Amino acid sequence: MNRLISTLAVAVLGLFALPLRSVAADTSGPAAAPTSVARWDVFELTLKGPSDGNPFVEVRVSAVFTNGARTIEVPGFYDGDGVYRVRFMPEQVGTWHYETKSNRWPLTGTTGSFTVTPAGKGNHGPVRVFNTFHFAYADGTPFKQIGTTIYNWLDTPEEVQEQTLQTLAQAPFNKARMLITPQPTPYQQRFAPPRWPFVGKPPHDWDYTRFNPEYFRHYEKRLLQLRDLGVEADVILLNPYGKWGFETMDAADDERYVRYVVARFAAFRNIWWSMANEYDFLRTKTEADWDRLFQVVQQADPFNHLRSIHNGSLIYDHNKPWVTHVSMQNGSAVEEPGRAEMYRGVYRKPIVYDEVKYEGNSHYRWGNLSGQEMVHRFWCGTVAGTYVGHGDYFATVVEDTWTSFGGKLTGVSAPRLAFLRKILEEGPAEGIDPIDKWQDPRTAGIPGSYYLTYFGHETPKEWAFRLYKNGVTDGMRFKADVIDTWAMTVTPIEGEFVTKRQGNYDFVDAQGRVIPLPGKPGIAIRLQRVGADGPAKTELPTD
Amino acid sequence: MNRLISTLAVAVLGLFALPLRSVAADTSGPAAAPTSVARWDVFELTLKGPSDGNPFVEVRVSAVFTNGARTIEVPGFYDGDGVYRVRFMPEQVGTWHYETKSNRWPLTGTTGSFTVTPAGKGNHGPVRVFNTFHFAYADGTPFKQIGTTIYNWLDTPEEVQEQTLQTLAQAPFNKARMLITPQPTPYQQRFAPPRWPFVGKPPHDWDYTRFNPEYFRHYEKRLLQLRDLGVEADVILLNPYGKWGFETMDAADDERYVRYVVARFAAFRNIWWSMANEYDFLRTKTEADWDRLFQVVQQADPFNHLRSIHNGSLIYDHNKPWVTHVSMQNGSAVEEPGRAEMYRGVYRKPIVYDEVKYEGNSHYRWGNLSGQEMVHRFWCGTVAGTYVGHGDYFATVVEDTWTSFGGKLTGVSAPRLAFLRKILEEGPAEGIDPIDKWQDPRTAGIPGSYYLTYFGHETPKEWAFRLYKNGVTDGMRFKADVIDTWAMTVTPIEGEFVTKRQGNYDFVDAQGRVIPLPGKPGIAIRLQRVGADGPAKTELPTD
Repeated sequence: MNRLISTLAVAVLGLFALPLRSVAADTSGPAAAPTSVARWDVFELTLKGPSDGNPFVEVRVSAVFTNGARTIEVPGFYDGDGVYRVRFMPEQVGTWHYETKSNRWPLTGTTGSFTVTPAGKGNHGPVRVFNTFHFAYADGTPFKQIGTTIYNWLDTPEEVQEQTLQTLAQAPFNKARMLITPQPTPYQQRFAPPRWPFVGKPPHDWDYTRFNPEYFRHYEKRLLQLRDLGVEADVILLNPYGKWGFETMDAADDERYVRYVVARFAAFRNIWWSMANEYDFLRTKTEADWDRLFQVVQQADPFNHLRSIHNGSLIYDHNKPWVTHVSMQNGSAVEEPGRAEMYRGVYRKPIVYDEVKYEGNSHYRWGNLSGQEMVHRFWCGTVAGTYVGHGDYFATVVEDTWTSFGGKLTGVSAPRLAFLRKILEEGPAEGIDPIDKWQDPRTAGIPGSYYLTYFGHETPKEWAFRLYKNGVTDGMRFKADVIDTWAMTVTPIEGEFVTKRQGNYDFVDAQGRVIPLPGKPGIAIRLQRVGADGPAKTELPTD
Repeated sequence: MNRLISTLAVAVLGLFALPLRSVAADTSGPAAAPTSVARWDVFELTLKGPSDGNPFVEVRVSAVFTNGARTIEVPGFYDGDGVYRVRFMPEQVGTWHYETKSNRWPLTGTTGSFTVTPAGKGNHGPVRVFNTFHFAYADGTPFKQIGTTIYNWLDTPEEVQEQTLQTLAQAPFNKARMLITPQPTPYQQRFAPPRWPFVGKPPHDWDYTRFNPEYFRHYEKRLLQLRDLGVEADVILLNPYGKWGFETMDAADDERYVRYVVARFAAFRNIWWSMANEYDFLRTKTEADWDRLFQVVQQADPFNHLRSIHNGSLIYDHNKPWVTHVSMQNGSAVEEPGRAEMYRGVYRKPIVYDEVKYEGNSHYRWGNLSGQEMVHRFWCGTVAGTYVGHGDYFATVVEDTWTSFGGKLTGVSAPRLAFLRKILEEGPAEGIDPIDKWQDPRTAGIPGSYYLTYFGHETPKEWAFRLYKNGVTDGMRFKADVIDTWAMTVTPIEGEFVTKRQGNYDFVDAQGRVIPLPGKPGIAIRLQRVGADGPAKTELPTD
């Protein structure tokens, strides 16, 4: 009863606050409403409301945004100190109106309007699935995923976090996987995480019904810094790495937590949702729990960010409709492209091999790849029409272990991954797919237009020009480059290759030309059609 | 009205017929009711009923069988000439009672009882999924699938069919894939199929509402002959191979046809249902059509036989609950065991690579494997914990092409597949699974008990004894055999190997012993624990 009375008192105060801001992660109080925001930036509405009782569970607030054609209800969240926020990522330019809704009347019925202007330079919108197996930003810019993993980088001292950002600024990575709730780390033997997501204290004294806004404001500051570096944040909602107890929350706690995170983060365009890391090691949950939480995210996120779940040993059913792409751990699938291709056919969604073992010197066998092998695995995934994730796990000095804590890279693969990213960005915007999957797993491309063949550990001295018939006709002309994936060189081959039908399946060069190769591992060939306005018409294979 | 009157007239005649038989595929009229049938044999109830109008669509008949504990309704079918049959495969010994149901009163209310006796020699019941990834007969006898493919063998002259049975009697195959509806074949240029599944005439003048019982009686005769040879009949309900028009039946025709086939065949214990061959090439149907037809079979088959669907290029979602096991076409998945293992994790069901290209000399690249490569692919599938299917496609003389028409085998793989089958049947009853899937794709077994390592195209001169830690403790003793998969020899290695922990992951031989190998391709090693009553306790891997 007392609680109700004091809630009402605060609600009356709330009438005087109709604040509106366009900058996220500002802890200051209500501000004047901005009149404009760029497309895919964050429009933030700040409201003053009740602070008594437990606003995290007792107060519901949202805002309905409309541009006349489209109406979107966006859940808000309590940010502490009587402040509520609703964050909106506008996807269309023009005039938008909003009106708030709440179960507390001072938070209800706030209205306003603003203009959404075209996106600024470097703002391509959120990443979406594109062309079945690939990704593109919302403005159509291709997104060629070269991911990395920095699980606990926000549980480290501030200087390590800053160093992590500096490293990323120089690195090829455009996606980073990171945990939300802390896991136990060697760092914490000396530095306990300075912030916790819930009210309470470690190891187990948490009130899961009360979030710590400061924890999330700090996380959001880092998310926006990643965004400004062009890095997608693949945030991992739940993880099995016990000690603090977050892995044993019950269904109601999980859902409240997930809704809170989604309400806070979903307006950031660089967010990807990963339901869990190694979900199957989180033995307190069933697969039905994951199905349910996936659907909570799907329903709660008005902006429909990418959704995945990452396995330990047991593979989730990624054919379920709420999974947008596959986030796979498989320690051997990208050892050769024939394996890497197989999940494409199963799931008909983008395949991201987020964990393929890490480059490192660990005594664990999942963390001891050479730099060459890490790069090899990225290329195998590439010519299978899939995407790969990087890890750097050098354990000699704990603080140097990038994949756990960020900081600096120790491995030597990163420049070669930058080189691969450049090759991909020079390639077809729509992505490359296996050309002839059961016969030539080494080759991806666009039939009749673009071919990338990777020889892996083989060391051929030459390659006789040959194209599978799909999309090819007599007399097409191609230029060729020899690519050294480790030395990072692209060597054009003089002259052109002209196609001529040979037998039931192939085209060869009319002059029978072969391409000389250096006889070392890690070599690729790129063929690009010349003298044509666009790609050849793709025909269905007729085996 | 006329129809109703004449139906009644026949119905009255039907009152005098309460026939019951225990032998299927007999075209004679009603017979006396047998008083007993062996478990998993066919108990057949024959009823006399209306023959006017179109009994295939106008008359519904079934019988409810009960042993007190279990009650099963079994759909019947019209077999022509006013004869209706209900076939029951009893799964429990003891006394069973039945009562018929129909929308025509003379077919209704027939009751009786009979005794189910224990199964006879060689009768192990239907094959079921066992131990997630494997198969066993209903009586618990392991079923180690060594399949073959004889699509059109029932569209050939009778002497070829007889020859096919003679070949199967000498061959290692315990499952055969076969079409139900004919497809165009070179044979038909000289011999049109002597029987058609529907009333009408080729090429397209069919009444899909009227079946030709003679066609199915002939098919059933062959099914029973396969059964008596120990061959499971993987019958393919629909296929895309057009000419006669069966591939363009509409949804109602498909369902009527499928229900008719299931009513006729389901009591045969050696039936497996394959919804289609190369389902995705049947371009008149959507995936939703397949989902629906799968569920028709699932609902209509009282005996719950195995259900699968076989792809061309596009893989069906085998995670759907009505799929009991995966019937995969993949031209490259069993080239090496690392690939072959991958679908296991995806589907958590038995994986049968029913089409992996065929042994042959075809100008088609899907029919030109050497015998060595065919055998290699079976072994790759085996050590991946999966199963493989055989094909024999030698096109020099059309009639010799086993995989299309049966007759004789031309290839040389069959004796080696018999050898493999023997190895499997000597192995663990519960089937073998990958021991350490992301590190050692060459090895399957039972941790701590049985290991089968296949070196494929590698030609090692020796192998240092090494076991992954799972299920192993110090001091276990193993005997070893070197297996030549092509020469079909098993060479025991003298002495025993005794396990000793080495490092984080492995056990080696305490004396550091290595196994000498012949340095040729196609070699395997078998390790079997000695001196223990049973397999070691399996521990979860702790990476």
